[in-house]
Amino acid sequence: MEAALEEAREAGRAGEVPVGAVLVRGGQVLCRSGNTRERDRNPLGHAELEVLREGARLLQRWRLDDCMLYVTLEPCTMCAAAAIQARIATVVFAAEDLERGACGSVWNLPAASEMDHHPEVVGGIMDEPARGLLNEFFAGLRGRRQG
Amino acid sequence: MEAALEEAREAGRAGEVPVGAVLVRGGQVLCRSGNTRERDRNPLGHAELEVLREGARLLQRWRLDDCMLYVTLEPCTMCAAAAIQARIATVVFAAEDLERGACGSVWNLPAASEMDHHPEVVGGIMDEPARGLLNEFFAGLRGRRQG
Repeated sequence: MEAALEEAREAGRAGEVPVGAVLVRGGQVLCRSGNTRERDRNPLGHAELEVLREGARLLQRWRLDDCMLYVTLEPCTMCAAAAIQARIATVVFAAEDLERGACGSVWNLPAASEMDHHPEVVGGIMDEPARGLLNEFFAGLRGRRQG
Repeated sequence: MEAALEEAREAGRAGEVPVGAVLVRGGQVLCRSGNTRERDRNPLGHAELEVLREGARLLQRWRLDDCMLYVTLEPCTMCAAAAIQARIATVVFAAEDLERGACGSVWNLPAASEMDHHPEVVGGIMDEPARGLLNEFFAGLRGRRQG
């Protein structure tokens, strides 16, 4: 999760919403990314989607059932559903997202009976630094809007 | 939708689940794709995600609020949420997906109050040929499994 936080910090410095993700396989970091939406002008540029795509490219398979996804913010519906599509074994997130979270806060897609696959979900790991980054970022945005 | 059906047919011939999508802007086709999961070994390789990413690349912006997404099957949670992320104006789909559809059948993400954006959704356009392609594909799969 420390690596995911580094990615989040770097994304924040680049003007992205500071969220970072890491894909782990066999205890090793397979790939890592922050949000890239603004940099790549890509509506799909959430950190989770970046590492799922890159991890599949590295392993040359779409089924990532031996991988764990670490992310600094509870995945949204798009990203939680993508992790399910990729058959991710475990999703570990830091800060809860009470407004948009889809791993228990607003929706709970990993537990939904309609899904083909049900990743294990672990939340609240190192949530304070992750939330701190996000609060700082959005306070900065509000400050600039009012300034 | 005819162009999306062509993409679906082509995907099916290539061994993908036969779903196709087209992004339309100002009455013109901006880009089109079928499913690419098997070809690209990409868990994110649904037709909708392919055209959202390519459309954003072509327009050099992530906000696709002047675009319509046509797709031959009701989007799943990942794809419906991605269309919302991309601020798609209207989602038009052919066949309903009563098992996984996230535009009214199982979930209704475009209408969810927690979402920042609410695309208009139109379903059932040319649903018979779209459903026919899918039924044929899955009947073929079952035949091969039993054979």
